[in-house]
Amino acid sequence: MTSTSIDSGPTSAEGMVKASFLPEEMEVAAPEGTTILDAAYLHDIQVETVCAGNGTCGKCRVLIKGYEPPPATGADNQRLSPAQLSAGWRLACQHPLIESGTYIHPAVSVVLKTVTSADLGDITLHPNVQKQVITLPEADLHSASFEWPMTQEALASLLGGADASLHALRQLPFVAEKAKGGPITVTLVGSRAVSFEPGDTRDKMYGIAFDIGTTSIVGALMDLAEGSEAAVASDLNGQAYHGGDVISRMSFTQGGRKNVRILHDAVVDTINSIIDRLLRQAKVSRRHVYECVFVGNTVMTHLLLNIDPSKIGYSPFVGVVKDAVTTTTEMLGINLTTGTSVFAFPNIASYVGADIVAGMIATGLEDRKGNVLMIDVGTNGEIALAVDGQILTTAAPAGPAFEGAEIIQGMRASPGAIERVRLDDEGVHLEVIGGSAPKGICGSGLLDAVAEMLRTGLVAPTGRLLRPDEAREKCPAALARRVFPDDTGGYFLLYGNSPESEDRVILHAADIRQLQLAKGSIRCGVNALLAEAGLEGGDLDEILLAGAFGTYIDRNAARAVGLVPDVDASRISAVGNAAGLGSRMGLLSLEARVNAELLPPKVSYLELSALQDFQWKFAEALGFPDPATLGSG
Amino acid sequence: MTSTSIDSGPTSAEGMVKASFLPEEMEVAAPEGTTILDAAYLHDIQVETVCAGNGTCGKCRVLIKGYEPPPATGADNQRLSPAQLSAGWRLACQHPLIESGTYIHPAVSVVLKTVTSADLGDITLHPNVQKQVITLPEADLHSASFEWPMTQEALASLLGGADASLHALRQLPFVAEKAKGGPITVTLVGSRAVSFEPGDTRDKMYGIAFDIGTTSIVGALMDLAEGSEAAVASDLNGQAYHGGDVISRMSFTQGGRKNVRILHDAVVDTINSIIDRLLRQAKVSRRHVYECVFVGNTVMTHLLLNIDPSKIGYSPFVGVVKDAVTTTTEMLGINLTTGTSVFAFPNIASYVGADIVAGMIATGLEDRKGNVLMIDVGTNGEIALAVDGQILTTAAPAGPAFEGAEIIQGMRASPGAIERVRLDDEGVHLEVIGGSAPKGICGSGLLDAVAEMLRTGLVAPTGRLLRPDEAREKCPAALARRVFPDDTGGYFLLYGNSPESEDRVILHAADIRQLQLAKGSIRCGVNALLAEAGLEGGDLDEILLAGAFGTYIDRNAARAVGLVPDVDASRISAVGNAAGLGSRMGLLSLEARVNAELLPPKVSYLELSALQDFQWKFAEALGFPDPATLGSG
Repeated sequence: MTSTSIDSGPTSAEGMVKASFLPEEMEVAAPEGTTILDAAYLHDIQVETVCAGNGTCGKCRVLIKGYEPPPATGADNQRLSPAQLSAGWRLACQHPLIESGTYIHPAVSVVLKTVTSADLGDITLHPNVQKQVITLPEADLHSASFEWPMTQEALASLLGGADASLHALRQLPFVAEKAKGGPITVTLVGSRAVSFEPGDTRDKMYGIAFDIGTTSIVGALMDLAEGSEAAVASDLNGQAYHGGDVISRMSFTQGGRKNVRILHDAVVDTINSIIDRLLRQAKVSRRHVYECVFVGNTVMTHLLLNIDPSKIGYSPFVGVVKDAVTTTTEMLGINLTTGTSVFAFPNIASYVGADIVAGMIATGLEDRKGNVLMIDVGTNGEIALAVDGQILTTAAPAGPAFEGAEIIQGMRASPGAIERVRLDDEGVHLEVIGGSAPKGICGSGLLDAVAEMLRTGLVAPTGRLLRPDEAREKCPAALARRVFPDDTGGYFLLYGNSPESEDRVILHAADIRQLQLAKGSIRCGVNALLAEAGLEGGDLDEILLAGAFGTYIDRNAARAVGLVPDVDASRISAVGNAAGLGSRMGLLSLEARVNAELLPPKVSYLELSALQDFQWKFAEALGFPDPATLGSG
Repeated sequence: MTSTSIDSGPTSAEGMVKASFLPEEMEVAAPEGTTILDAAYLHDIQVETVCAGNGTCGKCRVLIKGYEPPPATGADNQRLSPAQLSAGWRLACQHPLIESGTYIHPAVSVVLKTVTSADLGDITLHPNVQKQVITLPEADLHSASFEWPMTQEALASLLGGADASLHALRQLPFVAEKAKGGPITVTLVGSRAVSFEPGDTRDKMYGIAFDIGTTSIVGALMDLAEGSEAAVASDLNGQAYHGGDVISRMSFTQGGRKNVRILHDAVVDTINSIIDRLLRQAKVSRRHVYECVFVGNTVMTHLLLNIDPSKIGYSPFVGVVKDAVTTTTEMLGINLTTGTSVFAFPNIASYVGADIVAGMIATGLEDRKGNVLMIDVGTNGEIALAVDGQILTTAAPAGPAFEGAEIIQGMRASPGAIERVRLDDEGVHLEVIGGSAPKGICGSGLLDAVAEMLRTGLVAPTGRLLRPDEAREKCPAALARRVFPDDTGGYFLLYGNSPESEDRVILHAADIRQLQLAKGSIRCGVNALLAEAGLEGGDLDEILLAGAFGTYIDRNAARAVGLVPDVDASRISAVGNAAGLGSRMGLLSLEARVNAELLPPKVSYLELSALQDFQWKFAEALGFPDPATLGSG
């Protein structure tokens, strides 16, 4: 093959440009102005790309030979290192094919494949971690030889440029010795070599995706070579000892730097014990884990990084870090090989954190058409409204009612908790987790109960529980006789023959009030976003309920209590643990991660407490819908 | 001020471009094609520059407003971060002034000044460390506020873009609290924030330059705000316990990874004790040291970084790292604040290390005109030949004779050592360090003695010490009677009345042989470089003798024994501890450091042992010059 221009017959024509590609040794011709990438595709040359020429994925780099490489474009600068740029690498999608040019592109040794899983759907497997197998040439006495530059040269034809972590450089001489001139596997995170291993270990490549919840932490060990989940493990967040919710955690950090460190150490201890279990379960060696991805709310992200989140605790709610943070495990005390990469998803606001960004990525919120509302229902309700991809968010402090806390007989969604409630002429019908007799009520049961009490008239749209005499007049007798008076508004006997039974479960007027406050807070946020976008509830094309609680609540009950606007139930769907899915996608797909990094600056944030007439708007959102006017279906 | 084009009178003309500069709010006009930098200078606008428009220093960055910034050039890519490039920063020296453009340049808060010192000469003070004082705006409840993005914004007008170390991010919330809305000092290494301090601490900015010798380590605490030396301290290299020279250190490392670690820890212990002494001497707080620069031979650089150098010990002499290494002190176990920056100078070859690169920078070898030979005389002789800035190097294993080792009565250059020798008709005249009676002879004394013995005929050009009878015939009687025979070539009585005196100092024929081997090795290297460049000794315009030994030897003695080619003594000069100076320059001058980074790829290396007929060439270099043919002056 030669890169000089020769007449090669039929492909030669007026206005056509001829050039060649390596390693294929193919000469191609394309109309003037065709990008290098398009020219390759015209001739079935597999230049790697994820974003299909949009200049965002940075994978279509080619080394330009035969002419002075053109000035770098913004996309080149974003995606290629200064070393790569000055060596003559450019993105093939950014520049036209030039007559007599030669384009050397990295051999696509990792064939991109589409991974399908129930949770993740179809995603293109394209992790930030890659393994390349090289052999080092024999050192030459005539020229000064150094093993790392020789390695860089061996990688150059595969990757362009690469740098190395100090830890990896320390391994190199021993690994080179052990390889005895045979294959060496170089593991790269981005374009940085982080590990050298003798032999070919390309099938052993793992990462861990962590979802750091205030209550519990879930870790998923992902096989980055296969795109599959190798193990999952979870544990309670070790910080719980210092407070059950983010507010109490932040109060604790207000005690000073030492307390920040205590909470940091606690979460890292939990992470380390999860890592141990994951590795044991999947029989994976610690040294084959090369990257960890973290999502969590803004406070959890700060504590993971050992950064004081205490100012998030009071107005004007100031955090420290917003952008994604890239660091290494030893900087956090995480027990993996030195130099293992850490990527913590970016935050949007003090109460709209990295977990919500991950959820937006997992649900593809930005790419959905129409008006889409996403709510992560929890102690803190995070709400996002996407109008043809333009995203507006807010946070609503719902309080712990949805988790069963501050409810007289409330409990977590665990065995013995009432999770479904139906009321009719015959009385009360309950579904209890585990099928036993009920011990209390969890959030979804509470929501159900109140929805049913509204429908049957036991609770007025104002939220008031009818007095027994009113109930007897307006409601089925089987229900009315379960209403009892007391000095603080009365209560409804959900389970048991009488209020005196030892095993009775009641729902008190105060509990209804708690639910009302929680749903009112979230609905107030929903209303504010809709108002900001000039929309009404009925304009919503989709409502996505995210998070553990969002997955379990009954869509009709959510409408009935007015947690969400009154739209057809078919437009409401539960999207599961979107944050956890997003974190896994961040490990498996560089494109997903880049999208996550780019998302926060595009998202607007609305602070509810700064709204004019906020109190009035909140009060307005507190009321329940009148069952008579509620749509059906 | 407006950036729109208006007719502003006399400066307006055909082919002229008008634009404006911030923060000066000045409108300027310049002929089409004038660079932004030149346009600024035409109007006395102080856009910072070190390299005067060569595109190498990266200081003349401007933020372009008013039009789409042009594609980045190679120099832009080398010197600006992707974040800066995409924000619209470009180097003013790289792009033409564009009509109606607005150029915002960083306020030059550090006024560049020229520092003059006996050692360093004139250099422009421009450290890689800088301090900027900012105040954070009050957080706004209406928008999501994060302290680091607010800090970045405050820095943006001063710097373009900045990122931060995790350690610094951890300090930020506490410092912001303490500053109570007042000034905060941000310390940046490059464009990375590494420390936040409440108040204005711009006068407290230090770095430490280390010269890691095989024998001893010198640290210089430099005041980066003033460009002055605040303290110097030195100590023996703690590795000495495991062998006195690099060869024995490498042998030790061949015992495995554990031994590499032992030598690493030993050198770091010495460094830490030097740091303690420097800080005490100068009364400087540890947290005000922001950067350390290291030079040393290739083996020392590897051991500092805890990278195995053992393959440097045997053919083909393979090192691991060649390029400069940037890391942080905690990665090396150095006891300074977490995140303190480390810059280790690059190496050229296994036996031409970072210390020689530093020496080349200190002597400006690349910029010297004509044919310049630089020799660092020591156990390993490093030799560089610059032909109008084109540098060719080699290394010559001289052995320890120049340090007085393996010489029967040899010693280091310490009190009691003979350092100068003159022979004449009256006998022997000695200069002894400290002025006492002599206890032995050091390297410069040995060189002197042999030079004088050659001149007076006691030693033949072949290196043979005359027999007593030959000496009596050919040499002054006062000298001849000091020659004594023995079975192994005889000896010369340098000091004392008879060989039996207790305090006598002799120079044995075997010692002369040792010196001959040492100088022969170096001279062989010099000859090889000259031959490679097609030059002869007489073509040399300058000979620079570097290193401790190079500083002390007599120029005429060096010529007399043939260590250097026979050129006029006025062309030979001692340049002192050039490596140490280079390391200080690396701290004070970003330009010097960039030059150091760019130097090794431009330097050619010649491996003597790979030369054809090497043994023959070495033998040829062993002979001494015939005194009769030696030039005078």
